[in-house]
Formats: sequence, C-alpha cells, structure tokens
Amino acid sequence: MKKKIAEKDLIEKKIATLSMQNPRYLKLQTDEIQLSNSQKAIREFVLHPGAALVIPEIKKGELLFVKQFRYPLKKIFLELPAGKIDKGEKPLLTAKRELQEEVGYRAKTMKYVTSIHPVIGYSDEVIHIYLAQGLTYVGDSPDEGEFLIPQILTLKQAMEKVKRHKITDVKTQIALFWYEKIVRGLWSIK
Amino acid sequence: MKKKIAEKDLIEKKIATLSMQNPRYLKLQTDEIQLSNSQKAIREFVLHPGAALVIPEIKKGELLFVKQFRYPLKKIFLELPAGKIDKGEKPLLTAKRELQEEVGYRAKTMKYVTSIHPVIGYSDEVIHIYLAQGLTYVGDSPDEGEFLIPQILTLKQAMEKVKRHKITDVKTQIALFWYEKIVRGLWSIK
Repeated sequence: MKKKIAEKDLIEKKIATLSMQNPRYLKLQTDEIQLSNSQKAIREFVLHPGAALVIPEIKKGELLFVKQFRYPLKKIFLELPAGKIDKGEKPLLTAKRELQEEVGYRAKTMKYVTSIHPVIGYSDEVIHIYLAQGLTYVGDSPDEGEFLIPQILTLKQAMEKVKRHKITDVKTQIALFWYEKIVRGLWSIK
Repeated sequence: MKKKIAEKDLIEKKIATLSMQNPRYLKLQTDEIQLSNSQKAIREFVLHPGAALVIPEIKKGELLFVKQFRYPLKKIFLELPAGKIDKGEKPLLTAKRELQEEVGYRAKTMKYVTSIHPVIGYSDEVIHIYLAQGLTYVGDSPDEGEFLIPQILTLKQAMEKVKRHKITDVKTQIALFWYEKIVRGLWSIK
C-alpha cells in the first residue's frame, strides 16, 4: 500500500547553493535540495525582483492597454502597463512609476487588487496588481529602447479578446477577470 | 514633437545568438537584437517546451486540485494538475498523461479551453488548458521525487480562495476564471 503523503512531506529543504549565475541579465540560482524521503535533487530558478501591474481606468469600464513586442515569443502582445520593481522600491511606487513612464498618467487613487505568481516552477517572481483611478495625463517617459503603443478598450472589448484567445498574457488576463468582478460589485477592494 | 510609433516599430529583429546556456536544467538563449530605431540590445530568455494544464471535473462544479511545494517560492501551492510537454508530444496527450500520472484519472472527454503565456518577458513558455470530464480512477504514477497531495474543491470554494489571495498560481487562477464562465454558460468550448 502506498504511504499517504502529509503536507510536511511536500517540503523541500536546501542542502547547498551550487551556483549563482548571471549569464547577462537573468539571474539564476541552482540549489541542491533534500526531499522528505531523504533523496537529493536539484532545483534551478530565476531570481526576480518582482513586478507591479496597473489597471488604468480611463473611465468606468474603459481601460488603457499597451501593445508591446515580446522577443521571447516574437509577437506583439496587448498588455496592461507593468514593470519590474526597482531595488528597495515599494510595489505601489513601481505601479505609479510604470503608469507614468509607460503611458503618461498620474492617478488620484491606486487600490491594491491582488498578487500573483506567474512562474512557480522556475522563478520566484510575484506580480502585484493595482487599480488606478482618477487619471490625469502628465506625459510619458518610456525607458530607452522600450517601444509601446497605447490602446484604449472597454472591458467588454477586452473580455471578448480574452475569450477569443487574443489576450493571452497571464497578468493582463487575470487583471481583467478581477476588474470584471470588481466593476460588477461581486468582489470588493479597499 | 515625439514621433508616433507604428506597429512595425515595435518589432525587434535578431542580429545574432550570443549564447545558449543550459546551466543544469534551464535552457537560456541570449540574442543580440536590433530595435526599429536601429539601436542594438540584448534579449535573454528561458527556452521552454510548453506545458499542459488539466481542469479535472469530478462532477459539475467540483474540481480536483493538487498541493505541491514550489521550491523557488518555498511554499506549498494549491494548483490544478499540469506538466511539461515531452519532446514531440501533442499538448492534448500531455494533458491526458499528467491527469493520470499526477492524480490517477482517465477522462472520457478532454476539451480545449485556451492557451496562455505566463512569462512573456523572459520565457517562451505557453500553457495549453484542457477541461477533463467523465473521470475514472485508474491509479496515479507520479514522477520520482514528485510529491503531491490531491484535494477536491467546489468551484465556489476555489473562487473564494482566489478572492482571498490563497490561490495565486496564474495558470490555476486563469483556469478557474474560464471554468466559471463555461459552467455559467457564458463562454462555450467545443
């Protein structure tokens, strides 16, 4: 009979960090670990500073997206504005910064929506999602070499694109599902 | 005045592959690229074979999850069964295989739901999502060193966990939002 697995048996413990590699931009960590059955294994993953995503609400049910070329997939994606957390930066500040840098808006209020883990198999990345309301245009300032095209869509248009497999970026799709729950009054945020 | 960016200006072209690295498990590619303004830049990303996720419907509105320790985040996650595509394998077959290996079920029907991109910034991974219905238990056969605890939740319980930030794995969260649309008859799949 197979031994029943308890929750503590799932846990993997580090024996040693074998290497830290920074090929050019990505930082990798390779650890030797011990499973609950005492076997050893290797776990390798990307070290990521975390990111923040903004849902910029132009008006109720109308959101601002960006089109961006994503080189790993060689395709233009329709996304909500997002970016990596700078060293020591609070995620809320990242969200505000990206909203201004990428699309040129400042928000009267920024509400925390949720935090998601996009790559639990091989990255420690977490993405914090915020809803930006009461927007004022102040002018954008994209990073050098960062090319974006802004695009406004209603929630209905955006959800239609999710349904038709046209918005496939996970952070954008999740932010839209949450926003739909929020505007319908089904889920509340502070 | 700032030059208006056209869609073709978003595109990044490869100049050269500088290196392919396989530190231990992760395979990385580093490319030198050319932006539309002729500037050069480096793009580095994980090469991933793709994955398949299964929504195992025990009965209507009741799903089978797995608890799994995810080393990069040092935490136990509640997830839907999923796994990497083997070389040359069709995603549908991956889904069937993972359903049997991880939780021990065979499905009468497997319906394609959607495909998502979890890491467009630094991986070419795509995850194909399937809905498995008409399940029969045939016995599981997890990979060596793969420890899982199955758990059944109703859709209502699972959505409550999403809302309370307890299910944060993106593939699982997206599959649940889609499943909710499907069972409510709002979105249809073939």
